[in-house]
Amino acid sequence: MENYGPFLALLASALLVGFVSVILAFVWVFHYREGLSWDGGAGEFNWHPVLVVTGFVFIQGIAIIVYRLPWTWKCSKLLMKFIHAGLNTVAMILAIVSMVAAFEYHNAQKIPNMYSLHSWIGLTALIFYCLQLFFGFAVFLLPFAPVHLRALLMPIHVYSGLTIFATVIATALMGITEKLLFSLRDPAYSSSPPEATFVNCLGLLLVVFGLLILWMASRPHWKRPPEENTKVLRSIGGTAEGTEVESTMTSSSNADKSDLKINTEAARKQNLKFDESGQRSTM
Amino acid sequence: MENYGPFLALLASALLVGFVSVILAFVWVFHYREGLSWDGGAGEFNWHPVLVVTGFVFIQGIAIIVYRLPWTWKCSKLLMKFIHAGLNTVAMILAIVSMVAAFEYHNAQKIPNMYSLHSWIGLTALIFYCLQLFFGFAVFLLPFAPVHLRALLMPIHVYSGLTIFATVIATALMGITEKLLFSLRDPAYSSSPPEATFVNCLGLLLVVFGLLILWMASRPHWKRPPEENTKVLRSIGGTAEGTEVESTMTSSSNADKSDLKINTEAARKQNLKFDESGQRSTM
Repeated sequence: MENYGPFLALLASALLVGFVSVILAFVWVFHYREGLSWDGGAGEFNWHPVLVVTGFVFIQGIAIIVYRLPWTWKCSKLLMKFIHAGLNTVAMILAIVSMVAAFEYHNAQKIPNMYSLHSWIGLTALIFYCLQLFFGFAVFLLPFAPVHLRALLMPIHVYSGLTIFATVIATALMGITEKLLFSLRDPAYSSSPPEATFVNCLGLLLVVFGLLILWMASRPHWKRPPEENTKVLRSIGGTAEGTEVESTMTSSSNADKSDLKINTEAARKQNLKFDESGQRSTM
Repeated sequence: MENYGPFLALLASALLVGFVSVILAFVWVFHYREGLSWDGGAGEFNWHPVLVVTGFVFIQGIAIIVYRLPWTWKCSKLLMKFIHAGLNTVAMILAIVSMVAAFEYHNAQKIPNMYSLHSWIGLTALIFYCLQLFFGFAVFLLPFAPVHLRALLMPIHVYSGLTIFATVIATALMGITEKLLFSLRDPAYSSSPPEATFVNCLGLLLVVFGLLILWMASRPHWKRPPEENTKVLRSIGGTAEGTEVESTMTSSSNADKSDLKINTEAARKQNLKFDESGQRSTM
């Protein structure tokens, strides 16, 4: 892997920042708020920030970069797809439970639902996240989708994944703003009590976590190398250079090996075409 | 240009959504709030959302995609750099004035400054935006930076530009949340008065505008073609395929034309290397 050291440093930073964010979310609800419960009271609402930070931000972030970990490149792509889908499924379940906690708390306390911009964007992001998981499963994990459909949908899958992740963090920042304005009355948010500074720092950490994940996910030279094409090119004396075409685009074809005796330059051009169309996987 | 129709449709959508957002910001402050003034009152604060939406979101968004407009590809790269830098400078000035309005309003009304997560992230984003403009000017517009430095910094410039833009939109959403919670008392935000629904829609439009700009900016096949390399390859019988290397990386070299009689395949490999390092410009 090119720039292995910087990658490891960024990965360690992301894990540290993400992990500290989760810890801060727990400290917030246990030290400054009412802890956790499931009784329609404030303790039930507190599941909302805890599960959003743990699942919808931290686990989703890890799911995004799981293909980038170089020590997983010896594992099969299918196994990595299962891990990617599995982590996203866990994140989705935690996100759904976090929404249920907020709704049940509102209903128990006779607080209206779905009036704020936070709720509008948050619910929209969750719906798109579920759709993303469903279509990702149907198109990229199940073996039925034709290659050209995968190639067509991969850039949309990658773009949706990254923008949903960014939108979730933006929504968490709005949620923090709302919660601090509601909860801090005496002293108020504007007089900067310790809880306000503490939770503002949590918000900053979520932004830093998002920036680290998005940087790692958008560096083309940190992508998982495509096994199939690399093997083909190596077997005919080429190099792995320029072969970053999505391996699932080729692995589902059952072409006889004799068909693979292609010209190195032709493969290079083909890969370049895929590359220019933005049809490489970051999965 | 590949997919010219979809590009035009997306561009028209982005312009429409951005323009409607600006209109909604003005309608918000004139129809629902106290209008605009510069007297330390609520009318002075109202410059804050108006200028953020107009400058920091809409004009910055246009500045990001200005290189993608195919009818500008016949203009010199230098002219387009001036337009890119000029639009960003206008956006920066409007953003700074918007901050001054918020600070002066707070000071006049004895409201503390810089206590909220919105203010922390907003001021950080503005500082990074100013640094981005300064370094962009010094490295990519002035003719002094060596080619390898430009190649090294271009991916950081692109990543910073896109993430600052996304962070500004996230901050605007936090600001909308704060302002509606502060301003709407009777009826409160939670009872969804017309102003709440109206401004929530403005927030949604800002998100849609951001998504459109980020999609257009991140499609590799919509990048401005590099003039220099295309000419070189065409002159030696190659195609323009795979030549999306940053033109400013090559245009500053004063190599004699005889030096340019390079092998097409060598050029292709070189471009691929640049491409794989993520060192292509979206400027």
